[in-house]
Amino acid sequence: MNGADSLCDTLLAHEIDVCFANPGTSEMHFVAALDRKPEMRCVLGLFEGVVTGAADGYARMADKPAATLLHLGSGLGNGIANLHNARRAFTPMVNIIGDHATYHLKYDAPLTSDIEALAAPVSAWVRTTKNANDVVLDATEAIEVAWSAPGKIATLILPADAAWNEVSDAKIIPRSRPKAAQVSEEAVREAANAIRSGKRTMLLLSGMALRAEGLEIAGRIAQATGVRILAQQSNGRVQRGAGRVAIDRVKYRAEDATADLADVEQMILIGAREPVAFFAYPYKPSTFLKPDTNIIEYASNEMDLIHALQWLADELGIPKTAPVTLNKRKKALIPTGALDSTKIATIIGAMMPEQAIVVDESISSGRDFFNFTHDSAPHDFLQLTGGAIGIGLPLATGAAIACPDRKVIALQADGSGMYTLQALWSHAREELDIVTVIFANQRYAILHNELKNVGAGVAGRNATHMLDLVNPTLDWVSLAKGMGVEAARATTAEEFADLFASATARKGPFLIEAMI
Amino acid sequence: MNGADSLCDTLLAHEIDVCFANPGTSEMHFVAALDRKPEMRCVLGLFEGVVTGAADGYARMADKPAATLLHLGSGLGNGIANLHNARRAFTPMVNIIGDHATYHLKYDAPLTSDIEALAAPVSAWVRTTKNANDVVLDATEAIEVAWSAPGKIATLILPADAAWNEVSDAKIIPRSRPKAAQVSEEAVREAANAIRSGKRTMLLLSGMALRAEGLEIAGRIAQATGVRILAQQSNGRVQRGAGRVAIDRVKYRAEDATADLADVEQMILIGAREPVAFFAYPYKPSTFLKPDTNIIEYASNEMDLIHALQWLADELGIPKTAPVTLNKRKKALIPTGALDSTKIATIIGAMMPEQAIVVDESISSGRDFFNFTHDSAPHDFLQLTGGAIGIGLPLATGAAIACPDRKVIALQADGSGMYTLQALWSHAREELDIVTVIFANQRYAILHNELKNVGAGVAGRNATHMLDLVNPTLDWVSLAKGMGVEAARATTAEEFADLFASATARKGPFLIEAMI
Repeated sequence: MNGADSLCDTLLAHEIDVCFANPGTSEMHFVAALDRKPEMRCVLGLFEGVVTGAADGYARMADKPAATLLHLGSGLGNGIANLHNARRAFTPMVNIIGDHATYHLKYDAPLTSDIEALAAPVSAWVRTTKNANDVVLDATEAIEVAWSAPGKIATLILPADAAWNEVSDAKIIPRSRPKAAQVSEEAVREAANAIRSGKRTMLLLSGMALRAEGLEIAGRIAQATGVRILAQQSNGRVQRGAGRVAIDRVKYRAEDATADLADVEQMILIGAREPVAFFAYPYKPSTFLKPDTNIIEYASNEMDLIHALQWLADELGIPKTAPVTLNKRKKALIPTGALDSTKIATIIGAMMPEQAIVVDESISSGRDFFNFTHDSAPHDFLQLTGGAIGIGLPLATGAAIACPDRKVIALQADGSGMYTLQALWSHAREELDIVTVIFANQRYAILHNELKNVGAGVAGRNATHMLDLVNPTLDWVSLAKGMGVEAARATTAEEFADLFASATARKGPFLIEAMI
Repeated sequence: MNGADSLCDTLLAHEIDVCFANPGTSEMHFVAALDRKPEMRCVLGLFEGVVTGAADGYARMADKPAATLLHLGSGLGNGIANLHNARRAFTPMVNIIGDHATYHLKYDAPLTSDIEALAAPVSAWVRTTKNANDVVLDATEAIEVAWSAPGKIATLILPADAAWNEVSDAKIIPRSRPKAAQVSEEAVREAANAIRSGKRTMLLLSGMALRAEGLEIAGRIAQATGVRILAQQSNGRVQRGAGRVAIDRVKYRAEDATADLADVEQMILIGAREPVAFFAYPYKPSTFLKPDTNIIEYASNEMDLIHALQWLADELGIPKTAPVTLNKRKKALIPTGALDSTKIATIIGAMMPEQAIVVDESISSGRDFFNFTHDSAPHDFLQLTGGAIGIGLPLATGAAIACPDRKVIALQADGSGMYTLQALWSHAREELDIVTVIFANQRYAILHNELKNVGAGVAGRNATHMLDLVNPTLDWVSLAKGMGVEAARATTAEEFADLFASATARKGPFLIEAMI
């Protein structure tokens, strides 16, 4: 058995049985090892941004890490943007990055680069395995780091000789997943007292608190005490729709968020962080809360948030039978006429199937999607967490592989979709049940707004040239066809509704280019 | 005038008048500043790998740096692979990377990351400007670094407030480009004596030594003294074809390179490094030369290589009128029948127009291209230098912008082409005179060979799944159409020759999907 085999065995012993990959020469021994393990599902992405984004989507839905396989520093480099997003989503992930054989590094061959330096900003843990006999222990440590709450990114750099050399002792002792820490008695008393104080209080939720179970407890607390609940602006996963507790997010635009939070006197953080502006603007504050707001860090996202919520309810004397309002399924009217993003949200909200997984990278086009879907069929909502565009199509890839019996609906802006359009090929290759909706507004719409915000007036030649996706316009139907995904264009709400209905009624990938 | 304006002015004052860009919110003040400078040509890439690869291609042909504009750490991340290649090509480049306003960083907003850490492995110089008044000096230093021989990558991180704040003194003092250092008298005597010793000697060339002028001097030395000349395996730019001195490169495969270099007793390095294997393989050496080969580091690539070659010729008493054999234009017969990579090379070699720029990322399909094109029309040859795939289409973009009157021929493998296919949109948008030839072998062919090399036998399910680009196959004609580039498929040599003839006879982008 060589080091690469022992790595495969270690991953499988810890239930990591999906590997998103784009290998190269330095990973060929690991590829050969994977070839000897049919129980490992290998999913090829035609670009590493697809690989890391898919591993993120998989883990968000499977609640366990996938492995990635990347080719040296440049392969890692291509995956960095979506690793950044995964880090911000607190996604567990184990990256395997091949490197040159240890003795070859000193020759500074063309592909040599400082992989550890590139990995550090997007990893909670980075290690280069020194030799084949260290692989099992190093990989086990990587997995334990990935598992640690709320989910972390561990990057294991595997030199080619550590992969190909024989292992003298490859004994694997599978570890159990570590349990998340619990809040202290002092903390729960402080939070309960704050709520009892009668001040205007908000519970700000993220992480596991946004699963159906956590939301239900939070909703019960809100209903019993009058506190308000709100979700962080960016969250890895929210369970929403009929049968769940309705929750809004901190608004994206600083003005809107500040107005929305204006009367909050106390904020209790449960897996969330104090809300801050996505970007700074001249003469505008970076934070949204009034300076004298009392911020209570009740439960960090490294803690067991369901337990923290339930204990808080108990401490407040709220029984599990206390009333909580759940969203009721309502059928919206299907709009007609010229297509726009509101009509798309309405149609999807009305027509999405039960237990769909909505992946949202619609950027400015989808800001109101939440409002139209509280009463939709129950669904999971996965979003762009780190602001690095190009995650939507990969994230959908991974979610579909984690949940083959659920329909994935990818809401994809055109500008960000172009970043990792290669994911469409993986949709076709793996026959994934994904409906992709391209919001084809043919511009970086968000940036047109931002240019206005900086007071630059009307965009001139250079600015227009950098913010508009025209001359030529993109033809997403052809792009999808080029990668084996069936596609069609919708220019009216009727066409969109028809296409969406037929796409959701069948299995397999389909792309709708929505001209808005 | 704000910091962003002063940055534009500094760039323009140093003849940097092309900016390859994909901006975001944190760069909006710089975009607004660019908008006030119509003399700056802004070229949008729909992914940052396009941006950095295009800046590389531009600088290789223009012999001066372009600027890039990238959006925080994630935008830089997307550009890292092609920055790695540019670093290996010794390309001058000035990266401008926006960051959050300095005072906003402490809030760790979603897009915050350690930009300096990510930039360091691919940059010779990295600096974060502290405030608007430092912009001119910092940018000037960045430009001087980029200019320094043989060409370096300078990365300037521009916080949003350094861009938007007013500048109290924006006086720009344009500097002159520093001259490359010259070899010492001692070095030229040592090299001349080595050649006179009668040992079997090779001049290994790279950098400026591979321009027509350098090659002619090297050819004259070779002809007068019997030394052999060879080019490094990877070079940023080689001037080839009729009227130039023929030169081969160090071979890619270790066995071939070792055999080719077996009788070399002395190697004189002129802008080149000792040849090493691209990858290590079990039980194979990392280097190609015999251990007792005398390696003479005559002229490093930071030196004036034309001067170093001419001085060596003078020292050896070789007059400028000494005979040197130049390639003669020969018309090859146009092959017919089923298409393969050899026929493609033959056809392109025979039909390429005068002063074409050949961009080569054909990987395994194009290894023999050199052999078929010594006698072609004179052309420049730009290749993948750092092994990070996904440079071909971007490199062609930049080369075409630098040389609008020359035809660019991009030889593009399908697997690597998928990495940065977004560049095709820029080909259409900028109406670039590029013929792209896709070598559609529908696999990572190089990796099939490598899998064999590691002794893994025939690829099984997992390995095949990761190395073959089938189920579905890619349809490059549709992909090109989706981005506004006309395209057609060739399955026979006749079809390919017809398409290539018509594509070179007209202006503008065209893609040929060559089914091999």
